[in-house]
Amino acid sequence: MAEVKVNVGTFGYSIHIGENNLNQTGKMMSQLGLSGSTLVISDEQVGALYGERLIAILRDAGFSPELFLVPQGEGSKSLAVAEKLYSKAIMMGLDRKSAIVALGGGVVGDLSGFVASTYLRGVPFVQIPTTLLAQVDSSVGGKVAVNHELGKNLIGSFYQPRLVVIDTAFLYSLPDRQLVSGLAEVIKYGAIADQELFCYLKDNHRQIRNKDMSCLQMIIKRSCEIKAEVVEKDEREAALRMILNFGHTIAHAVEGDTAFQLYSHGEAVAIGMHGAALLSHRQGICSENTVKELKNVIVNFSLPLYAPECTAADLLPFLIRDKKAVGGKINWVLLNNIGEVVINNNVKQENIAEVLAMITN
Amino acid sequence: MAEVKVNVGTFGYSIHIGENNLNQTGKMMSQLGLSGSTLVISDEQVGALYGERLIAILRDAGFSPELFLVPQGEGSKSLAVAEKLYSKAIMMGLDRKSAIVALGGGVVGDLSGFVASTYLRGVPFVQIPTTLLAQVDSSVGGKVAVNHELGKNLIGSFYQPRLVVIDTAFLYSLPDRQLVSGLAEVIKYGAIADQELFCYLKDNHRQIRNKDMSCLQMIIKRSCEIKAEVVEKDEREAALRMILNFGHTIAHAVEGDTAFQLYSHGEAVAIGMHGAALLSHRQGICSENTVKELKNVIVNFSLPLYAPECTAADLLPFLIRDKKAVGGKINWVLLNNIGEVVINNNVKQENIAEVLAMITN
Repeated sequence: MAEVKVNVGTFGYSIHIGENNLNQTGKMMSQLGLSGSTLVISDEQVGALYGERLIAILRDAGFSPELFLVPQGEGSKSLAVAEKLYSKAIMMGLDRKSAIVALGGGVVGDLSGFVASTYLRGVPFVQIPTTLLAQVDSSVGGKVAVNHELGKNLIGSFYQPRLVVIDTAFLYSLPDRQLVSGLAEVIKYGAIADQELFCYLKDNHRQIRNKDMSCLQMIIKRSCEIKAEVVEKDEREAALRMILNFGHTIAHAVEGDTAFQLYSHGEAVAIGMHGAALLSHRQGICSENTVKELKNVIVNFSLPLYAPECTAADLLPFLIRDKKAVGGKINWVLLNNIGEVVINNNVKQENIAEVLAMITN
Repeated sequence: MAEVKVNVGTFGYSIHIGENNLNQTGKMMSQLGLSGSTLVISDEQVGALYGERLIAILRDAGFSPELFLVPQGEGSKSLAVAEKLYSKAIMMGLDRKSAIVALGGGVVGDLSGFVASTYLRGVPFVQIPTTLLAQVDSSVGGKVAVNHELGKNLIGSFYQPRLVVIDTAFLYSLPDRQLVSGLAEVIKYGAIADQELFCYLKDNHRQIRNKDMSCLQMIIKRSCEIKAEVVEKDEREAALRMILNFGHTIAHAVEGDTAFQLYSHGEAVAIGMHGAALLSHRQGICSENTVKELKNVIVNFSLPLYAPECTAADLLPFLIRDKKAVGGKINWVLLNNIGEVVINNNVKQENIAEVLAMITN
């Protein structure tokens, strides 16, 4: 079992990574001083698979847990669903020492974290991410949010969990498309910060795809370490943290333009990274070979490079409305080399237009 | 013009207190690096009186402000109204450097602050409190919230403003009942932390009631200083900050039990302080004379001591559901002497019952 410490927030917290460490959740929570009423939030699918088991684990450790299931899918990341969770928390008598536990993927984690950050102005939050995407991305770093009908993640907080439990055994039941979606974020970590991880992905893509547990544990741990390091230096996304957004500016536009129906998040990120690499090349800061290296790894994992259903004209308004845009200027994360990115808010309009045309072709 | 510095949050911030300093708001905001689109939130009454003037002041200082009015009253502190404000912010293209400005009393401040704390995970927030209550209490300390149908302020954040502008000239148009409501909180500051302020209130109650501006400025400044000092030591209400809750445990119950219709917040706090003093006496930690001193000042300002419309049996469930209760135990703030309080979560049940009976008689 591996542990990644994240020194951020009032307390700091640990990410525990291992096979079947879900069984230790109650014990780990007790050690943090948590006790009593505990609200476990999951979705209907994950909850059906693992909900009762987690409830039993927590009950055995002396907690009084209750399970609340939300419908599966992005639609649950809404103020309306959050309001139901507040009601549940109030009816259970949850107080400021009671924990809210998220058991699920990014939707459940973001929603539960938002509720934990705002219920009674903040109660302890525990993340148990069950998808690879949530394990390497949304469960680390304290960004929690719900969606607004005008855009994704527009309502949220920076709120750190007290504990993250990553049980790699969850991945056995994860569909391939979702596994690959998470791998897009792992490719991103390699691209922005770690050439070695990038090469590891290239060299081991078959084992990873076949869910070799030691490979998966390795790339999860390294991803969490990279994200933790960035978040420790810049919790509130003042500057450095923006590098985590590599590929995401275009990804959010692609997701928005296709109403979040067509592409998984990781697929959109793959297209976005491709676009960002092409843009970097047009801006003259990265070689054609670097673009090609990135494309190859994306293709190795059967991730897409293009969004032919979109048009450049449709994507553009989404870019401008991006959360990280300031004064109408988009903060682009551009690639220098594999493992090295820069932030540029002064990218040429014609380069953006050309790249959008290329990736939507 | 007086200034109180509050060293809390990422930036720290200043509270500026003076007559007609509203005119300096644009300049002060510019000095903090704020610019561009600015969402000013007010209610229909305050907005009608001062909204256009503030918009002109901000426009003159180079901002692009828009005014959004919410209905007057506690009903606006809801997720539904917050959702409308998010939509407005999105439509205006507010980004993370854009400010949200609250122009109004506690309702507008709490609501606007909650929106500022959660829109794009937090944008700069400026408070311009227009009631005495908001000036001495809710605009200092960073507690922002909306209500849930099951209870007040149950959904919120700790979120510090970048700037607080207290223009005492607003108080000329403030109805007497609202002035007095604010004075209950000033009495509280005297009771918990400053015998001198308490005596000043006793000696100058007529001038204060007649809106003598130098008296008002003095008690506002001192109240802000006391609150700032407490909040600096304990932003997130781990322990010390609870002393600000003196009188509020019962006050929240009285407000809840009368559906927030019968008593102003300050009136409920006056009743609650009376109850807390009686409880302190029953617990053997304060003299009968101290209880009397407190009662006298409350009566001096025509504030109530009793809530005859309530019953002890009805108030009790509200006490237990209090946000500061932990593991079902109520954290009572009890009075030792004027200027000195202690926190006690082990008050005898029979004393609570007796005191609730006394104040509802």
